[in-house]
Amino acid sequence: MTEESLRELLESIQAGKQSVDDVITRLRAMPFEDIGFAKIDHHRSIRCGFPEVIYAEHKTPDQVAAIFDRCVRAGTNVIATRASCQVYDAVVGVCDKAEYHEVARAVTLRQQEAVPSQGTVAIVSAGTSDLPVAEEARVTAEIMDQRTATLYDVGVAGIHRLFAHSESLQSASVAVVVAGMEGALASVVGGMVECPVIAVPTSVGYGASFHGLAALLGMLNSCAAGVTVVNIDNGFGAGYTASLINRRRESKQE
Amino acid sequence: MTEESLRELLESIQAGKQSVDDVITRLRAMPFEDIGFAKIDHHRSIRCGFPEVIYAEHKTPDQVAAIFDRCVRAGTNVIATRASCQVYDAVVGVCDKAEYHEVARAVTLRQQEAVPSQGTVAIVSAGTSDLPVAEEARVTAEIMDQRTATLYDVGVAGIHRLFAHSESLQSASVAVVVAGMEGALASVVGGMVECPVIAVPTSVGYGASFHGLAALLGMLNSCAAGVTVVNIDNGFGAGYTASLINRRRESKQE
Amino acid sequence: MTEESLRELLESIQAGKQSVDDVITRLRAMPFEDIGFAKIDHHRSIRCGFPEVIYAEHKTPDQVAAIFDRCVRAGTNVIATRASCQVYDAVVGVCDKAEYHEVARAVTLRQQEAVPSQGTVAIVSAGTSDLPVAEEARVTAEIMDQRTATLYDVGVAGIHRLFAHSESLQSASVAVVVAGMEGALASVVGGMVECPVIAVPTSVGYGASFHGLAALLGMLNSCAAGVTVVNIDNGFGAGYTASLINRRRESKQE
Amino acid sequence: MTEESLRELLESIQAGKQSVDDVITRLRAMPFEDIGFAKIDHHRSIRCGFPEVIYAEHKTPDQVAAIFDRCVRAGTNVIATRASCQVYDAVVGVCDKAEYHEVARAVTLRQQEAVPSQGTVAIVSAGTSDLPVAEEARVTAEIMDQRTATLYDVGVAGIHRLFAHSESLQSASVAVVVAGMEGALASVVGGMVECPVIAVPTSVGYGASFHGLAALLGMLNSCAAGVTVVNIDNGFGAGYTASLINRRRESKQE
Amino acid sequence: MTEESLRELLESIQAGKQSVDDVITRLRAMPFEDIGFAKIDHHRSIRCGFPEVIYAEHKTPDQVAAIFDRCVRAGTNVIATRASCQVYDAVVGVCDKAEYHEVARAVTLRQQEAVPSQGTVAIVSAGTSDLPVAEEARVTAEIMDQRTATLYDVGVAGIHRLFAHSESLQSASVAVVVAGMEGALASVVGGMVECPVIAVPTSVGYGASFHGLAALLGMLNSCAAGVTVVNIDNGFGAGYTASLINRRRESKQE
Amino acid sequence: MTEESLRELLESIQAGKQSVDDVITRLRAMPFEDIGFAKIDHHRSIRCGFPEVIYAEHKTPDQVAAIFDRCVRAGTNVIATRASCQVYDAVVGVCDKAEYHEVARAVTLRQQEAVPSQGTVAIVSAGTSDLPVAEEARVTAEIMDQRTATLYDVGVAGIHRLFAHSESLQSASVAVVVAGMEGALASVVGGMVECPVIAVPTSVGYGASFHGLAALLGMLNSCAAGVTVVNIDNGFGAGYTASLINRRRESKQE
Amino acid sequence: MTEESLRELLESIQAGKQSVDDVITRLRAMPFEDIGFAKIDHHRSIRCGFPEVIYAEHKTPDQVAAIFDRCVRAGTNVIATRASCQVYDAVVGVCDKAEYHEVARAVTLRQQEAVPSQGTVAIVSAGTSDLPVAEEARVTAEIMDQRTATLYDVGVAGIHRLFAHSESLQSASVAVVVAGMEGALASVVGGMVECPVIAVPTSVGYGASFHGLAALLGMLNSCAAGVTVVNIDNGFGAGYTASLINRRRESKQE
Amino acid sequence: MTEESLRELLESIQAGKQSVDDVITRLRAMPFEDIGFAKIDHHRSIRCGFPEVIYAEHKTPDQVAAIFDRCVRAGTNVIATRASCQVYDAVVGVCDKAEYHEVARAVTLRQQEAVPSQGTVAIVSAGTSDLPVAEEARVTAEIMDQRTATLYDVGVAGIHRLFAHSESLQSASVAVVVAGMEGALASVVGGMVECPVIAVPTSVGYGASFHGLAALLGMLNSCAAGVTVVNIDNGFGAGYTASLINRRRESKQE
Repeated sequence: MTEESLRELLESIQAGKQSVDDVITRLRAMPFEDIGFAKIDHHRSIRCGFPEVIYAEHKTPDQVAAIFDRCVRAGTNVIATRASCQVYDAVVGVCDKAEYHEVARAVTLRQQEAVPSQGTVAIVSAGTSDLPVAEEARVTAEIMDQRTATLYDVGVAGIHRLFAHSESLQSASVAVVVAGMEGALASVVGGMVECPVIAVPTSVGYGASFHGLAALLGMLNSCAAGVTVVNIDNGFGAGYTASLINRRRESKQE
Repeated sequence: MTEESLRELLESIQAGKQSVDDVITRLRAMPFEDIGFAKIDHHRSIRCGFPEVIYAEHKTPDQVAAIFDRCVRAGTNVIATRASCQVYDAVVGVCDKAEYHEVARAVTLRQQEAVPSQGTVAIVSAGTSDLPVAEEARVTAEIMDQRTATLYDVGVAGIHRLFAHSESLQSASVAVVVAGMEGALASVVGGMVECPVIAVPTSVGYGASFHGLAALLGMLNSCAAGVTVVNIDNGFGAGYTASLINRRRESKQE
Repeated sequence: MTEESLRELLESIQAGKQSVDDVITRLRAMPFEDIGFAKIDHHRSIRCGFPEVIYAEHKTPDQVAAIFDRCVRAGTNVIATRASCQVYDAVVGVCDKAEYHEVARAVTLRQQEAVPSQGTVAIVSAGTSDLPVAEEARVTAEIMDQRTATLYDVGVAGIHRLFAHSESLQSASVAVVVAGMEGALASVVGGMVECPVIAVPTSVGYGASFHGLAALLGMLNSCAAGVTVVNIDNGFGAGYTASLINRRRESKQE
Repeated sequence: MTEESLRELLESIQAGKQSVDDVITRLRAMPFEDIGFAKIDHHRSIRCGFPEVIYAEHKTPDQVAAIFDRCVRAGTNVIATRASCQVYDAVVGVCDKAEYHEVARAVTLRQQEAVPSQGTVAIVSAGTSDLPVAEEARVTAEIMDQRTATLYDVGVAGIHRLFAHSESLQSASVAVVVAGMEGALASVVGGMVECPVIAVPTSVGYGASFHGLAALLGMLNSCAAGVTVVNIDNGFGAGYTASLINRRRESKQE
Repeated sequence: MTEESLRELLESIQAGKQSVDDVITRLRAMPFEDIGFAKIDHHRSIRCGFPEVIYAEHKTPDQVAAIFDRCVRAGTNVIATRASCQVYDAVVGVCDKAEYHEVARAVTLRQQEAVPSQGTVAIVSAGTSDLPVAEEARVTAEIMDQRTATLYDVGVAGIHRLFAHSESLQSASVAVVVAGMEGALASVVGGMVECPVIAVPTSVGYGASFHGLAALLGMLNSCAAGVTVVNIDNGFGAGYTASLINRRRESKQE
Repeated sequence: MTEESLRELLESIQAGKQSVDDVITRLRAMPFEDIGFAKIDHHRSIRCGFPEVIYAEHKTPDQVAAIFDRCVRAGTNVIATRASCQVYDAVVGVCDKAEYHEVARAVTLRQQEAVPSQGTVAIVSAGTSDLPVAEEARVTAEIMDQRTATLYDVGVAGIHRLFAHSESLQSASVAVVVAGMEGALASVVGGMVECPVIAVPTSVGYGASFHGLAALLGMLNSCAAGVTVVNIDNGFGAGYTASLINRRRESKQE
Repeated sequence: MTEESLRELLESIQAGKQSVDDVITRLRAMPFEDIGFAKIDHHRSIRCGFPEVIYAEHKTPDQVAAIFDRCVRAGTNVIATRASCQVYDAVVGVCDKAEYHEVARAVTLRQQEAVPSQGTVAIVSAGTSDLPVAEEARVTAEIMDQRTATLYDVGVAGIHRLFAHSESLQSASVAVVVAGMEGALASVVGGMVECPVIAVPTSVGYGASFHGLAALLGMLNSCAAGVTVVNIDNGFGAGYTASLINRRRESKQE
Repeated sequence: MTEESLRELLESIQAGKQSVDDVITRLRAMPFEDIGFAKIDHHRSIRCGFPEVIYAEHKTPDQVAAIFDRCVRAGTNVIATRASCQVYDAVVGVCDKAEYHEVARAVTLRQQEAVPSQGTVAIVSAGTSDLPVAEEARVTAEIMDQRTATLYDVGVAGIHRLFAHSESLQSASVAVVVAGMEGALASVVGGMVECPVIAVPTSVGYGASFHGLAALLGMLNSCAAGVTVVNIDNGFGAGYTASLINRRRESKQE
């Protein structure tokens, strides 16, 4: 269901072609279709401006494929995150145009023409091991029509690497900073840029990193204002919010 | 130092009026003045678009007043957060136009003409006890020239209160959601709006709230995408980031 | 041993057919039979109104089958929770009428005629991944003769899904709310209903969910009164207590 | 607003005396009156069957008195919990019939005739230091028209004290068990009774009790089914839920 | 090295047969033999009254067998704990009289004639899943010449099972109480007996048991005096200390 | 009530002077007298061999004095722990022979002739700040008729201080080791002695000592077998258990 | 006791002027003098190269003064840390040359001529609130004869402040980095210098800083090699270890 | 790039052979080569005095081999830590002189002639299971040209083993102490030596060791000054810092 079809429906009331009750009944049924084990929220693209996202982690390949299939039919772009190859194989069985992003562990399908954003989402990551999370953020932002610029492996221990790219950083509209261990990169970037920074702690590390807790606490306590934080390893949430920030700006300029 | 004076300085090089070394020497000295116990960063308004913020919590009234005084002379707007009445009394001694926001525990001074934002920062809070943190966010956003709309005492246990105001919420450009106890309000608001949500856990609660930990974890695990989180009780950080998001949008429209 | 046989035993004292000492001796021996690695508590159906429950998690299939067998002979209904297929295979070897609930990971055997309750136990869950726990609650309530109504996949991020079913929720006698991540669903439901709510945090989530800790703390700090909490993933405990609440009401009406 | 007045309002629509829109407008306004710092939810007695409860902990005496005053005018029973003497003094200033329960730290006002419940809420506590929490549960249950039976200072270390009262325990409809330190009392009572047990961990203890965490975890892991848990020191929540369980039973018997 | 041979050595100094330096040199070399990856402490049987104990958990089967072999040659009793079948197979290769205790996961070798203690070490456990830890305590105590009495599966939820055996409990010299989940059994036993109680929390449980943390905290906060605690799952430590307490008593009576 | 008076009571049944029911009635009433806010357990000296202990921490001076008074009348020795001067002043008002131990924060009254133990309880402490806990252990052991030997300020950082006293340590029957910070002293002592070691972590320290957690975890993980642990700062529990261990040995020798 | 006097003592044996036993007896007595509540370790200056340090936190002013007095008589330099003005007043009563460092909360007395080190200990701190800890490190290093260079208020959010001083940093022999909140400064400095870095987390911060835990974990997980960590707020430990590193180097050069 | 080639480059500016811009351009490019998934920092040997270290844990064998290959070409010594056999096999494919240290799980390549240090790095470990971490420290120190002395299996429970080697310990320049469980060894060694001690907690242990947390907290709270701590299991960090301390001393002596 697109905003167009919703408008048609509502105008049919105004025009007296349908009773209010009938429309209410249809609307109540439409927001989500019950396919047994999950309710798919097609209204989300109206309420929140974006397609349904499928979190594949605790679902079987077949469950993901079935949900994916419904989303395809709704005509929107689709993204499934935390998707293994097995999941991708199942999805391809129902939708052969689906694309797999191996490092990001994501499956995407673009069904609507891309209108690239003017501003850029910078995605900065500290180490090689943080790549899957950074890539999840990038793939998410791109399926949401954002231009992205990546700046990987620029950890704080060799801070000159980061400064070599400061120009590129300072021209971004939003920065997503992905780092494990002590997560100090978020504070350093936060002190260098004017734009909002979304910090993503990763579970990279060992011992007293406590599976990302050290980076999470570090980022929450950042001495740089303008830094907000998402859950450990939540590349999707960071890419999604970055898109929300950047995209609204564009749409409102008109 | 304003952007204007920086530009003049740099053009004086181009025009051959000063050597590069001289300018570097001046610049290196200027970013912060050393007043013994703290370095004040007047360049921040160039680098990050906002004046120095004074975190008064662990400073003596006299220390705060001294830093405030320097900021006043720099000509920018000033804000001191976590300021007790004692702090305010000391600040007023050096700057009689400073204003005290009792609930927000903030001292502000406006020295530059306000240019109110077009979009609105919605500030939503769950309970009466969350007010100080919500007000800190509001005062911060307003000294940064944001229009704000407040929606207080709309906790999840009586969720109809929130829905009675859904229109006002949905028209905001950014939402700051302030809640203690289980922090569920952030997820509910996150599911209702299209704009980015900045969640502020508060230390309101007792027992297993563990001084805000329950709300913090709840918000980090929000099932609503588009929610990012700041430190417990960090109303300032939320107001600041909300302003960053909203303000950039406007300035870029020109 | 049924209540009937206990009564006979006690009346035999009254009638002088047995000495008090003899009866005490028999009773002391009867409450549990020692089968080497576990003591089975047949008296429970007298003391607490329900059959022995077998927690299969840390037991071998053969151990579960042996305990199940003893329970079968006692004539009561039986339930084994956290049972893998291997466990079920072993149980079927000793009792071919045992039924397997795959999603709930439970084995049940009904030996006593069901007398369905008048009131309903509503079982509400937030996401697809919470299903095993929700189903464990449902299967438990049903083997204890409760009518149940399920409302699955109605997470807080799309709160209109929940409100579409508010009527069904409000007519329940007890609500079991199953949710992982931030667990906000318990507070929202708690604010919508008049009946007691039993909240079950699940280990669904990642990162700062800390295996269910975030949901657990969130539920314990619920701003809605009338919400009590059981252990993480403890669908059985929730279903059991819900039955206790509902069943007592009915039996006392007579 | 009572259920009666709501019914009248709705019948006025049916009778064509008011338009639907007018009624909606009135209803939307009525649920809560805005008194500046808090929204009071007078509809709660319709939705949830009980009056507004005032949590006084983080409020000033004057704030509590103001909210109390509004509740008094609504004609319902009122209870303010976590109320210091100072709070009571302020409340008495606006309502001289308010009663102070010193140990429970609660202020109550009974405005509606009591209709005592048939079943009994047993309130069991482990040690002398747990009294304030146990009393908060008792006062809450009584303002909600419950009969209560108290069984104090029956900790597990001298378990014969508890067994001396087992008859009284076993005749209860619901049991509230209040204990700090290791919280073992909840499991022991849970194994003795047929009715639901609401366990309240208290912050009584020192060292590794970690302000009630030990008791909380102990109760959540209770090996006795039928035990649910509320927040540390949350005597109110336990008394409230116990009333909910017991009261529904009675009202439905008619 | 036995106490006898030590005495001979020291008397040889007194008698002037060896210089002090020579003896010191010999003694410094003797306490442990270096076999490459571990130093074996043969003096322990002099200093502490018991043979070397081999903790097999993080060692390879071959490493355990090599250490076991050295201990065998020292003539003392030997025990290896946390030993898998693979470890046992390797040990049997060097010592065919070694005995495997499967549930306890221990390998023992008795080389010195047993002199059973007069008093009894009671070993009490809560559930079937606690058996491995309880058995480790029993096997340890028995290789240290203690009489033991076991009381298994007597959890608090069915407390009458425990009371049925109270006589046996009350005649023990020391009680080892093994329990997971909430660990309440330690407090209940501690309130029933006069002798010291050694509480062993186990990692049995799920969710908020946090791998034994709930039981550990519960036991540390026991309201019964006379209860001391060892590490989670440390059946060996409990059996060892219980033996120390009981054995010293006997040996000093002579 | 002493063991003597209990025996008389029971013999009166045997002699037919009282009915069983009468005696049961009297016994059930006697174990604890209800004085309103606490039940005093006079039977404890029969069941557990020691008088009631009063934990004064969360009680008012008057409450402690009232309980103390009842205990005095029972004729046993009495001890109140965690007692401030205010508590002592109140106690002296009802019992002028009560003695105050300032460092240990304990009030004691000896009413029964002391029969000093043969073996010695060694009390070892790491630093000056651990003294209150060590002294609480000493005072407890002495009111329970134990000989004690104290070895204070022998922390691990200057380990030669400890070794200078190793002889005295090795002749003890039980050792109580009191240490904060990292708690290493327990392991070192545990490796030096043959007797059981009761480790008492203290809350002495700062930062990452987390109020005694570091010492507690250290002691629970002691690499020395024979070490058991009590709650943080629980000097009483350590002194009590040490007495239990030592005293039983003596009484059984007869 | 100085090394000189120890040597004299030992040579008196060699020369036959004293028996070995006599010397042993004197030495055993000398290392620490018992003054009732604390053992002072005068041998430390021989074993570890530095005087006794008095940790004043949990001691009374009189206790500190008494210990200080003994140290003064030993002729060494003395330092008391965590000393309030009250403590200083008491110390001055026994030693009028003692000096008070108010910010560092330390009392020092120099009795031996200073021989300043060649290398420099750089002390770097992030914010104004970290000053007391940084100053404690500085005062400690200086009483141990180190040259120090301080670089205060150079937090990561304005990283150019730090780089403005990079030359001074890079010429240091050891760097002590003091930071609260997220502690990122340690990683940044660690990536800039060749020398060892000692990181001191401080308890500065609020909310999710959890009293320094965030900074502590951040520093332990530093991505820069060469960083080691001391306890939260342990400025003394950092200054002491830095001196150890720097001083050894110098002394060995001779 | 060696310091030599850097100097040549800079002198070419001085000599007017290259423009400053050209040199800046070359330098900016050189510090790290981008090979797709990781930036290798060849400048590190200039800035920090040591070659790039490859942390192999979360990298594929092929990724490690590719990075290793680049490092080999830079002519420096190379070390890859946390390397499995599979990683070694891949590395040998590109560099057949690479050496595998199985226990330490490290791959090294020496390309520069060793100049052994004068002072010694002592590596002390508590138990057999701590060997991998201790060996990682040793291999790291040795590839950095340090003399090492190992003292393994000298845990605190048999403290005489440690004292038998005290001479060797006291002659070390730096001590690395590796211990799991309670980590007490660090404090004991810290009290015995004059040199700095780097403590490495290991994850060896079970139950309340919480994967190394107990040892970590213990070491951070060490009562011995001069002890600093690295992350759990971070043998590399300890070996690296120890080398830094020792090596600087030597290089500066010239």
